[in-house]
Amino acid sequence: MSFSVTILGSSSAKPTVSRHPSAQAVDIHEQYYLVDAGEGVQQQLIRYGINPLKIRAVFISHLHGDHVFGLFPLISTLALYGRKTPLRVFAPAPFGEILACHLRYFDSELPYPVAWTEVDTTKHALLLENRTLEVWSIPLRHRVPCAGFLFREKEPPLNVEKFKIAKYGLSIAQITAAKRGEDVVLGNGEVIPNAELTYRPYRARSYAYLSDTNFSAKAAELCKGVDLMYHEATYAAAEQRAAKDRGHSTTADAAKAALKAGARRLVIGHYSSRYKDEAQLVEEARAIFPESYPATEGTTYSIEKER
Amino acid sequence: MSFSVTILGSSSAKPTVSRHPSAQAVDIHEQYYLVDAGEGVQQQLIRYGINPLKIRAVFISHLHGDHVFGLFPLISTLALYGRKTPLRVFAPAPFGEILACHLRYFDSELPYPVAWTEVDTTKHALLLENRTLEVWSIPLRHRVPCAGFLFREKEPPLNVEKFKIAKYGLSIAQITAAKRGEDVVLGNGEVIPNAELTYRPYRARSYAYLSDTNFSAKAAELCKGVDLMYHEATYAAAEQRAAKDRGHSTTADAAKAALKAGARRLVIGHYSSRYKDEAQLVEEARAIFPESYPATEGTTYSIEKER
Repeated sequence: MSFSVTILGSSSAKPTVSRHPSAQAVDIHEQYYLVDAGEGVQQQLIRYGINPLKIRAVFISHLHGDHVFGLFPLISTLALYGRKTPLRVFAPAPFGEILACHLRYFDSELPYPVAWTEVDTTKHALLLENRTLEVWSIPLRHRVPCAGFLFREKEPPLNVEKFKIAKYGLSIAQITAAKRGEDVVLGNGEVIPNAELTYRPYRARSYAYLSDTNFSAKAAELCKGVDLMYHEATYAAAEQRAAKDRGHSTTADAAKAALKAGARRLVIGHYSSRYKDEAQLVEEARAIFPESYPATEGTTYSIEKER
Repeated sequence: MSFSVTILGSSSAKPTVSRHPSAQAVDIHEQYYLVDAGEGVQQQLIRYGINPLKIRAVFISHLHGDHVFGLFPLISTLALYGRKTPLRVFAPAPFGEILACHLRYFDSELPYPVAWTEVDTTKHALLLENRTLEVWSIPLRHRVPCAGFLFREKEPPLNVEKFKIAKYGLSIAQITAAKRGEDVVLGNGEVIPNAELTYRPYRARSYAYLSDTNFSAKAAELCKGVDLMYHEATYAAAEQRAAKDRGHSTTADAAKAALKAGARRLVIGHYSSRYKDEAQLVEEARAIFPESYPATEGTTYSIEKER
């Protein structure tokens, strides 16, 4: 029951020799979701041992090239890998038109469908839901329509305490009822409240991806209590003005967002190419939010199960 | 007066961890020309110390994604670098429509022009000419319209032998006439044939890029006497059938093309991802054409000046 994020790209718009543009692979219960798809993402996936065929859906925050140019080569290569299963892409408009251009000129006979769902970047909306997961959009403040993404694991089913089963001699039917969340009526008419019999095997986990954006208290609020937050930190704290003007954040902005959200851990990235060493940026964030870490490519941040 | 080719990509359509899709940087007299532009080419350029701003023109052999997907991110990044000088792109149709799509959605306010010249892949035509260089198209045999490119250095201007200047006491006017290729008439009426006075400081150099293609005797003929030939070798010699069916070449095809052209050196690349070790492929080519070398990324093949 994995829940982890692998950093595939840590650069802002100008890539460097050692940093690729934005991309991450989110692994939730062995299902992979790609978050942004900067140039080179298909090579980054195989470099870090993630089979591109395992990607179920792609989430694109906004339509600046450094967040999406890697998606089209990936779509072409997945055809060479013989993909048959549909690929869902969640992205703001006019992604559909861009996709149509790509398919017309490069993949007119794609052997699997690419299904686009428009993301309304002004709304906090449920984008994807399955048995174990919900993915929500988070409105951000960038130069173009841009949304972050909040991955929320669903509450795992209730378990029944073994020693309570023994203590009350519960039947299969009674155990099943308890697992459904019902109170249990014993043979003698006594009612045992569900809470006394059951527990959650682990608490639901969550991850928030916030890039590209100015500091947004609203966005932070929507990530309340998140286990892991990625927040762009294109600039050092001293570059507040440049960050504000360009719809980006500083290390301090990112740390304040994590504080405001009450996040447990923060990962910063989307570094400007002017910063050769990310350690200084992480130090700046840690001065405000101690649990800050760098978006080093190839690093996997796992959220472990806890009672 | 450089004349060299730096390999930026050596993979066929499916990139691997260590091999990028097709791209090369041709340096002729410190002017850079990009030949094909597979995904990641902008990062490969900086990785190998080539300033992307120095690229004067781009030559795209055909419109399969693995030869062109890196061009659009490069176009966007050059804007961030503040490029003002036009970028010429030579490519088959409908490149113009693909470029228009890119510009409409990603670079609607590009600060420099991208000027497309259509390559007629059925013709051996002069595409670009300047003071020192001619670039010619070479019709190839692939699944889609595809052209190779022949880079021909122009003959350097004549020099006059110093000892002849002394021997005949030539005047500035007579030396200038000799450099123009004229015979020289001495004061006593004696005529000195130009050939006795002058020499070429070095012979003109040439490079041929042939990818993607089946073996083509015609293409090889058009590269007669080339100093350096790059020829795709997607498959090992044993895979003749697969190569033929898919519009590609084997190591043997590439070597035969170099033999037929009377090339001095051959570089093979565009390897299928099935081949982990390129040494065996080079060995196969050397069995037919001993001067065969691998398209190892980061390797620069220089053609030195010779009398």
